[in-house]
Amino acid sequence: MSRPIPVEVVPSHVHLSESHLQVLFGDGNGGTVRHELSQTGQFAYEEAVDVVGANGESIVLRVLGPHRKVTQVELTPTEARLLGIDAPLAKSGDLASAQTCTLRTAHGTIEATASVIVPKCHLHLSDTEAISLRLTNGATVRVDVVGDTSRVIEDVAVRVHPTYRARLHIHSDVARDVWLHSGSHVRVRDIQG
Amino acid sequence: MSRPIPVEVVPSHVHLSESHLQVLFGDGNGGTVRHELSQTGQFAYEEAVDVVGANGESIVLRVLGPHRKVTQVELTPTEARLLGIDAPLAKSGDLASAQTCTLRTAHGTIEATASVIVPKCHLHLSDTEAISLRLTNGATVRVDVVGDTSRVIEDVAVRVHPTYRARLHIHSDVARDVWLHSGSHVRVRDIQG
Repeated sequence: MSRPIPVEVVPSHVHLSESHLQVLFGDGNGGTVRHELSQTGQFAYEEAVDVVGANGESIVLRVLGPHRKVTQVELTPTEARLLGIDAPLAKSGDLASAQTCTLRTAHGTIEATASVIVPKCHLHLSDTEAISLRLTNGATVRVDVVGDTSRVIEDVAVRVHPTYRARLHIHSDVARDVWLHSGSHVRVRDIQG
Repeated sequence: MSRPIPVEVVPSHVHLSESHLQVLFGDGNGGTVRHELSQTGQFAYEEAVDVVGANGESIVLRVLGPHRKVTQVELTPTEARLLGIDAPLAKSGDLASAQTCTLRTAHGTIEATASVIVPKCHLHLSDTEAISLRLTNGATVRVDVVGDTSRVIEDVAVRVHPTYRARLHIHSDVARDVWLHSGSHVRVRDIQG
């Protein structure tokens, strides 16, 4: 029996490319770090952006850092429906079928093409944690909830990196459907496919 | 300095009256308990319901038990906007300005008038925890995030009951705005108003 892994319900957020960050935060303003996240080296900026759908609806999301090669907007299905965006369920970084939105601040506006996804549930593991669980980067697993193994989450993408800490990351619609929150833990049940 | 209190991002959900429960679960079906919640005596049913707005949009929410005197639907502002419901920010049980939705299952449909609110952030405390914090039921406080006192949540309603455990309950839009998730803790900063 593998050890319990904490669940983190990750709020929807935006990653910006360096050039988009300059437009949206204002030239020469690198942004202000607000606080660090649980994964080493990741942080939230003080700055937020309006994410606007083609239907004109918008929500405000925090920007996470450090900046990335390409801009990526991670929404829940509920938020995507509100904004009229047909966002695909995808792994972070897999923007092949990602959709378009407009990002807006007081400093500027950009059209972020191929940026919007609904993030797949994923399991962060350090190298040593992955070895002890006999899992490799890119594997797909099922996890169940500690104390209630009838609650199973399928199709969880395993992501391994030396800097990672063992965490299941889900978005808040999954938390609502499965009823998971702070203090919830999961265990890896088996490898899928 | 008061001790850290765990944050729970409570997923949106429905409380049903006994008569509504009978219609929506089917007569003679008291519902199936799926798992217990952190607050003593509270649980989630196996059963879920469609919450339908006047605009025809719908989302699926879990039903929590035990049943209540009156039906109450707790949404995030994002969900309320999607369903076209102008839900007021209110304390649980304060349905004076609550709005209407339709609740639907395979067994039946009801119009739930004066049921829909956006729940105010609230702090559950046991009697002894309230005494040690010098707080009383109905007080309003500000809390800040342990490790980052720049993140403050205002207008938090204090709810005291012998069966409660110290928890800050927030909905997922607050979690998104303030960036709080599993493992986050808060401290009571001061009493407001």
